[in-house]
Amino acid sequence: MFVVEGIKSVREFLDSHYKVVKIYVSQEKLFDMNTSDFELVSQKELAQMSGLHSPSPVLGVFHIPQPKKIDFEDWVLVLDDVRDPGNLGTIIRLCDWYGIKHLVCSEQTVDCYNPKVLQATMGSSTRVNIGYTDLASFLNKVDVPVFGTFMSGNSVHEESLPSKGILVMGNEAHGIGKTIADTILNKISIPQFGDQTTESLNVASATAIFLNEIRRS
Amino acid sequence: MFVVEGIKSVREFLDSHYKVVKIYVSQEKLFDMNTSDFELVSQKELAQMSGLHSPSPVLGVFHIPQPKKIDFEDWVLVLDDVRDPGNLGTIIRLCDWYGIKHLVCSEQTVDCYNPKVLQATMGSSTRVNIGYTDLASFLNKVDVPVFGTFMSGNSVHEESLPSKGILVMGNEAHGIGKTIADTILNKISIPQFGDQTTESLNVASATAIFLNEIRRS
Repeated sequence: MFVVEGIKSVREFLDSHYKVVKIYVSQEKLFDMNTSDFELVSQKELAQMSGLHSPSPVLGVFHIPQPKKIDFEDWVLVLDDVRDPGNLGTIIRLCDWYGIKHLVCSEQTVDCYNPKVLQATMGSSTRVNIGYTDLASFLNKVDVPVFGTFMSGNSVHEESLPSKGILVMGNEAHGIGKTIADTILNKISIPQFGDQTTESLNVASATAIFLNEIRRS
Repeated sequence: MFVVEGIKSVREFLDSHYKVVKIYVSQEKLFDMNTSDFELVSQKELAQMSGLHSPSPVLGVFHIPQPKKIDFEDWVLVLDDVRDPGNLGTIIRLCDWYGIKHLVCSEQTVDCYNPKVLQATMGSSTRVNIGYTDLASFLNKVDVPVFGTFMSGNSVHEESLPSKGILVMGNEAHGIGKTIADTILNKISIPQFGDQTTESLNVASATAIFLNEIRRS
């Protein structure tokens, strides 16, 4: 199970395929409370349940769903050990914007039900199918082209990207791990136009650019 | 003046055109301390100066430089009230990556010398000229094409972008303010491929995509 806080986010999850365990509400008028899904609690009780400094008047508990079967007829995004909750949240929001339905994460990637991740997704979590798995064996089994992002890869501006495939993004500090990297045949990069001493781009910025390139081509 | 913490960031500022006021160091061997720019202090003194929970062994104080004259022969990025330090830091890093030399911020945009901004820029601040001004009068005076990002704008995938111009990005919650919006003739957007209920993209993600589009065209 996982916790969702905030009226807008709780409504998004209630309106989605997620199954509710219980919604705790401190102000009765916020929802149609006619089902057993809801329970009226005091503000003090809500504050005790909440992980926020300023608790919202609603806190929802939902079941973590089984990941759906992946449809390889469109692009699938894969994350190798993305650790920052804000980055994962932004990436889920980007998947939703670009209609990427499936996100596959390595087992060391930050939990997508972490409250900071949910906060950064702005409700997009309800529309992206997210699973965690051993990436080496996952990538070993797929039969669509696998693209990975590397500083030394070919410029994505000069690539002709197919209509389906897998895009692998790496860890914030170390990029894509060596075991995984060795299995990736299509190494791509975002060309740099500034001073050569520039740090690499943030993984969420890079994902934004690659997903845009995938959809525009 | 402003404060920079962390060995890597302090070195980047020391190697740049920024003028140093003083570098406080708790471990002598970290720098060549032969000039009066350096002062050896105890770890306790450094902890008292630092804004971090785990202070770095070095803290630098630098002069805020005068903004340089803007070169309108290339693209210039303009921010209308970007408030989140992480977003501004990421945007400065993107400017550095894409060789955007000039960033013009509205007076309500978060301070680019805010420690959280400097932390997110990863040293890119030293290579981007950043100024704060009244945007309405700034945009009134320029004679290059002005592009602004709006949900209802034309798809950037179908625009033929010129080799120079101004790109205006708006506030996280409200986008570009009405007074400014009325003066922008070229309204552009990032096409959405997912579910129509998706929130807009984060301003840093959107900036990543637009700067990539500017440089690829």
